[in-house]
Amino acid sequence: MKKTTLLYLVLIAAFLAYAARHVYTNQVGESAFRSQELRGELGENYVMVTFLSGIEYWKSCLKGFEDAADALNVSIEYRGATQYDAREQTTVLEQIIAKKPAGIAISAIDPDSLTGVINKAVDAGIPVVLFDSGAPGSKAYSFLGTDNYAAGGSAAQQMAGLLDGKGKVAVITLPNQQNHDERTRGFQDEIKQRYPGMEVIAVEDDKGDAMVAKGLTQSLLKRYPDLAGVFVTEAAGGKGAGEAARELERAEKLHVIAFDTDKDTLDMIREGSISATIAQGSWNMGYWSLQYLFHLHHNLTIPSPAASGEVAPLPVRVDTGISVVTPENVDDYYAK
Amino acid sequence: MKKTTLLYLVLIAAFLAYAARHVYTNQVGESAFRSQELRGELGENYVMVTFLSGIEYWKSCLKGFEDAADALNVSIEYRGATQYDAREQTTVLEQIIAKKPAGIAISAIDPDSLTGVINKAVDAGIPVVLFDSGAPGSKAYSFLGTDNYAAGGSAAQQMAGLLDGKGKVAVITLPNQQNHDERTRGFQDEIKQRYPGMEVIAVEDDKGDAMVAKGLTQSLLKRYPDLAGVFVTEAAGGKGAGEAARELERAEKLHVIAFDTDKDTLDMIREGSISATIAQGSWNMGYWSLQYLFHLHHNLTIPSPAASGEVAPLPVRVDTGISVVTPENVDDYYAK
Repeated sequence: MKKTTLLYLVLIAAFLAYAARHVYTNQVGESAFRSQELRGELGENYVMVTFLSGIEYWKSCLKGFEDAADALNVSIEYRGATQYDAREQTTVLEQIIAKKPAGIAISAIDPDSLTGVINKAVDAGIPVVLFDSGAPGSKAYSFLGTDNYAAGGSAAQQMAGLLDGKGKVAVITLPNQQNHDERTRGFQDEIKQRYPGMEVIAVEDDKGDAMVAKGLTQSLLKRYPDLAGVFVTEAAGGKGAGEAARELERAEKLHVIAFDTDKDTLDMIREGSISATIAQGSWNMGYWSLQYLFHLHHNLTIPSPAASGEVAPLPVRVDTGISVVTPENVDDYYAK
Repeated sequence: MKKTTLLYLVLIAAFLAYAARHVYTNQVGESAFRSQELRGELGENYVMVTFLSGIEYWKSCLKGFEDAADALNVSIEYRGATQYDAREQTTVLEQIIAKKPAGIAISAIDPDSLTGVINKAVDAGIPVVLFDSGAPGSKAYSFLGTDNYAAGGSAAQQMAGLLDGKGKVAVITLPNQQNHDERTRGFQDEIKQRYPGMEVIAVEDDKGDAMVAKGLTQSLLKRYPDLAGVFVTEAAGGKGAGEAARELERAEKLHVIAFDTDKDTLDMIREGSISATIAQGSWNMGYWSLQYLFHLHHNLTIPSPAASGEVAPLPVRVDTGISVVTPENVDDYYAK
């Protein structure tokens, strides 16, 4: 009798062991089924590729890319051309393609130079999205970045506010890089259309160099002693223009509007030698780039009729937004 | 001795029961930790809200919303105003807000009427995104939809191709709904800027009704017997204009370009009474709307400085893309 009882106990315990596991498996089974779509596999590797890869600007893009990788359980790699050199970026991309990663997010050094190598990746079945700086003629599936034309317009509005809608202004930029061209055009158009008291008297090329930007600002001030403002469309130059503004011996302040939120730029906004800067949604660029690549890699995009190549499998253009940083809110923009 | 053996067996079985469960918990524990960010909780409910909620067009948006819900393990609900009635849509939204859902994706009946109730939801801490048809003055976090201005331009290019760049064309639309206004403007601007041989001779209001669109097309044909094309910016009217084109007794074909991919429209493209239609990325609108709401609800958006409200936590505008459906590719667009 006791033996039988114990036997029952063993059987009950065995059953419980089985049931506990089984119930759990069911719960897990279901959740695993449901969430498998948004979980990567071992060795699934995505690459972010930039140019001037050491600059501070990319940190926030990469943080977004990393955060998405954590959420999706995949691994990532950061690569890039160290110089401002289209051939170097092409070579880096060729090396990456050879390794057949699960996807590549690229910020293109210019609109045209990378088209061939981007198409090569897509043709090899590697998902590619562009972020920050696009290559509109390429086969990349999506572009995620600032609406740079609108951002240039916002800079013009900010400048008009600082100058009460009156005065000569100049643009310092990197010509022939699509995002910078659009910022310049947006700034020019907004001033032409809405601020008749203002005039853009020059558009200069600082080659992405703070010292060049400083020199350009100083020579502009010689040519136009009443120059009231400078809009610098690229991150490095803001510091140079700000230094020229700081050293200026004149009653009227020279208002500099910069781009991006490098520590130097933020420091100079605190100090007053830069009046404002345009902050981009760079975390979003990185985060949603990886989400898009993941969805392409796992065929989780629009099922039909994407198969026929007729409808874009992903949103074709994502405006990640901007905001204007001024002395009033600058403290919020320091990396935490 | 046997009793002891059996006792051991019970203990071993109990241990196995515990271990099996424990091992499983550990495995799950890890995956749950990693993927918890992209997995919803029990009772997490998101609502999609439209107007004219019974029309075919929303099906593909809702399919995207559903697919994202499956991937993220959350539940969804579909609601809407059955009529083309701003007050009804506002009432529906009020009812939904009272239930405090995890997020709401709204297609706004017009750019202004819902601003108050949208802001009420956001102020109550309920994430809101807009899809398909926006409300730019509201506090909604993002807009996901077609770049309707560009879509209107694409329709103009398609029309110019059909007409060899020559002839009188008309637009039939729903005035005062932002997406339709933009399609109309994009169409008009593209023709004005690029096709000097073409002229937009009328912009008419069909009130979203196929019979009205048919009548309008017929009276336009009376006023302009050489009318060469009609661009209908809204889904219902294409059928009506197509019927007028079919019944037209004239040597020259009247070319109708419609919008969206309702079965009727596709059938008439096959048959030849509609020449082309514009397909929207509606699945993407629904899919990424839910992804965005989920990320807002779980605070997975840009961590800082979004907290200060300075940078948009999500991309502010997402262009979900379009494609042109013609007799050559129409078969790909039937629901599968």
